[in-house]
Amino acid sequence: MIVTIVSIEVKPENLQEFIEASIENHLHSIKEPLNLRFDILQSTNNPSCFTFYEAYETEEGVAAHKLTPHYLKWRSTVEAWMANPRQGKPHKVISPKDIEQWR
Amino acid sequence: MIVTIVSIEVKPENLQEFIEASIENHLHSIKEPLNLRFDILQSTNNPSCFTFYEAYETEEGVAAHKLTPHYLKWRSTVEAWMANPRQGKPHKVISPKDIEQWR
Repeated sequence: MIVTIVSIEVKPENLQEFIEASIENHLHSIKEPLNLRFDILQSTNNPSCFTFYEAYETEEGVAAHKLTPHYLKWRSTVEAWMANPRQGKPHKVISPKDIEQWR
Repeated sequence: MIVTIVSIEVKPENLQEFIEASIENHLHSIKEPLNLRFDILQSTNNPSCFTFYEAYETEEGVAAHKLTPHYLKWRSTVEAWMANPRQGKPHKVISPKDIEQWR
């Protein structure tokens, strides 16, 4: 399993449209065959800061996501709304190790 | 729902014992009545950096976690192993909104 934690800062004037585009991306991403989770979170202390928590069964799943029409649409749609470049950090899972607990 | 994303940097010489203590904390935390998830991740690019992804149904659940014997034990056990103070950032959930998808 691989979990990518993506940190995104959005321009304050684009928050609502960013949220809408990201919910659409979420709804498609969770249907990908190797996706386990695709959570979208908003910082309580700084509503301009978002985190995407993207869990996939394999590296192939991570790579396949980046080729999907919904990801490519999301990426081009939100590009102009970013306050600075987003950062994605890959992680390996310590707990829970049982993949059934991720489904 | 509240998701706290905790970033922890551990001294390189204490990685294995930190992982063991954190797995024990995970096993107890997921049994708390208001806990939804308690994922423990290790950065792929920097194995000294860990993320705890702690999802609770309510603020009461977050507060109750901090009073549990397993949290207090973990906190005192790992304190000397931290490379610098850990940071916990609270988030609200954008997607998925349905709590059943978090159980």
